Amino acid sequence: MRDVTKDTQLCISLSARPTNIGTRFHNYLYEVLDLNYVYKAFRPTNIEQAIAGVRGLGIRGCAVSMPWKEAVIPLVDHMAESAAAIQSVNTIVNDDGHLTAYNTDYQAIYNLLESHQVPRGSFAVLGAGGMAKAAVAALTNAGFGPGTVVARNEQTGRALADQYGNSWAPDADGLDASLILNATPVGMSGGPAEHELAVPQDVVERSATIFDVVAFPSETPLITAARAAGKPVITGAEVIALQAAEQFVLYTGVRPTNEQVAEASRISRA
Amino acid sequence: MRDVTKDTQLCISLSARPTNIGTRFHNYLYEVLDLNYVYKAFRPTNIEQAIAGVRGLGIRGCAVSMPWKEAVIPLVDHMAESAAAIQSVNTIVNDDGHLTAYNTDYQAIYNLLESHQVPRGSFAVLGAGGMAKAAVAALTNAGFGPGTVVARNEQTGRALADQYGNSWAPDADGLDASLILNATPVGMSGGPAEHELAVPQDVVERSATIFDVVAFPSETPLITAARAAGKPVITGAEVIALQAAEQFVLYTGVRPTNEQVAEASRISRA
Repeated sequence: MRDVTKDTQLCISLSARPTNIGTRFHNYLYEVLDLNYVYKAFRPTNIEQAIAGVRGLGIRGCAVSMPWKEAVIPLVDHMAESAAAIQSVNTIVNDDGHLTAYNTDYQAIYNLLESHQVPRGSFAVLGAGGMAKAAVAALTNAGFGPGTVVARNEQTGRALADQYGNSWAPDADGLDASLILNATPVGMSGGPAEHELAVPQDVVERSATIFDVVAFPSETPLITAARAAGKPVITGAEVIALQAAEQFVLYTGVRPTNEQVAEASRISRA
Repeated sequence: MRDVTKDTQLCISLSARPTNIGTRFHNYLYEVLDLNYVYKAFRPTNIEQAIAGVRGLGIRGCAVSMPWKEAVIPLVDHMAESAAAIQSVNTIVNDDGHLTAYNTDYQAIYNLLESHQVPRGSFAVLGAGGMAKAAVAALTNAGFGPGTVVARNEQTGRALADQYGNSWAPDADGLDASLILNATPVGMSGGPAEHELAVPQDVVERSATIFDVVAFPSETPLITAARAAGKPVITGAEVIALQAAEQFVLYTGVRPTNEQVAEASRISRA
């Protein structure tokens, strides 16, 4: 790693459960691209104080994870379109004390639908949290539909469904959609449903494409079942790398090549 | 430099004119002693927000420079004796959100009077700012006196003099003191009095020891004149290294050897 100096720009992440993924991803690319930046994950004790610190210390960029993606909205100066559309923030950029909020998850999901050439058609998004909001907005803006938002909580599920004229379902039983996108923690390592399939097996079989945003592990039971059924998949590992790459561009103004992003992603998950 | 991870502790400095000295000093010792810390200087835009960030982000340690050594007093939870005695803070330690303020300049000056075996006797301290307060307190507690506080501003000068039963003088003309200690910016690189002697030549000649806390350059006109007159000197380079070493101990709980401090100091000023 290059030496930290007084002129080194600091970028950080705010997460209740920090990992080394972002830290490794960004620091690897800073080194490869010879940029005077350093990245470090923080677990803040108080989100208002943490964002005050971003502003008061002149921290250049700040990734925002669960559970603060909505809590930071009143703390920034401007919501860029990607964050405003879904009222969920995962990235803050500090320009001389002026904080702009973005959502690079939205951008990443949108770009993956394009790069994987997923056929337009019906979709079902599982979940109604920040990532589900990003997914529904990206799918709608990419020309997918009609869609179903699957969420146990009717209030948040219906609210997200209604925002873009989709329908709501309380569970995945009997779903018949071309694209299934899981934006719940089902299948996540260490979570309460680590070994569960996010939808019944027959829903997987009726689908054309499976997209799981869970990144740890990226080979979730859902992805494994989809591969076994011969379905094309998009994994959370791709989302996390692409959204981090978009953050990198926002922070530094430099766009790494696809090969550099792939290598940073590989190293960050090693 | 070792890699930054999510578990790396961050220590920082808050200064209106950051240098690389502290950053190099601490990062060198972290590496030599294999400690998972990283240090970086910041120029805060707002001191309340910056200290909120120290607390909210869980930043382990924070050096405080001009002009915030007094402004941070209401922002911490506890004033340790070294800071309380002189109502001036140069170090904040964060224990799980509880902020304790210290003044390691005081400790450094006190220790240098001991290690240089400066003969006890009369003293004159030039200045009435945070460093002058630290100097008068350290001299008094080390058994020096009677003393004179030399400061153009009668109010602040008399206030500091009265605190320990010393006298005040508006300028250094005619001073006759065994130890002369400069705690003003006279002789400081880039300052308005860079090439000036902090006291008249005859005051240097009447003294037994000259102590200048100006660290850049450490060979000030006053130190140069003292050396030419054959007087023993203590320089600001020694103060800055020793106070940084005390900060290092407070942040990490690890005390570097004198040789390690000397090498860190050499590297940090290179």
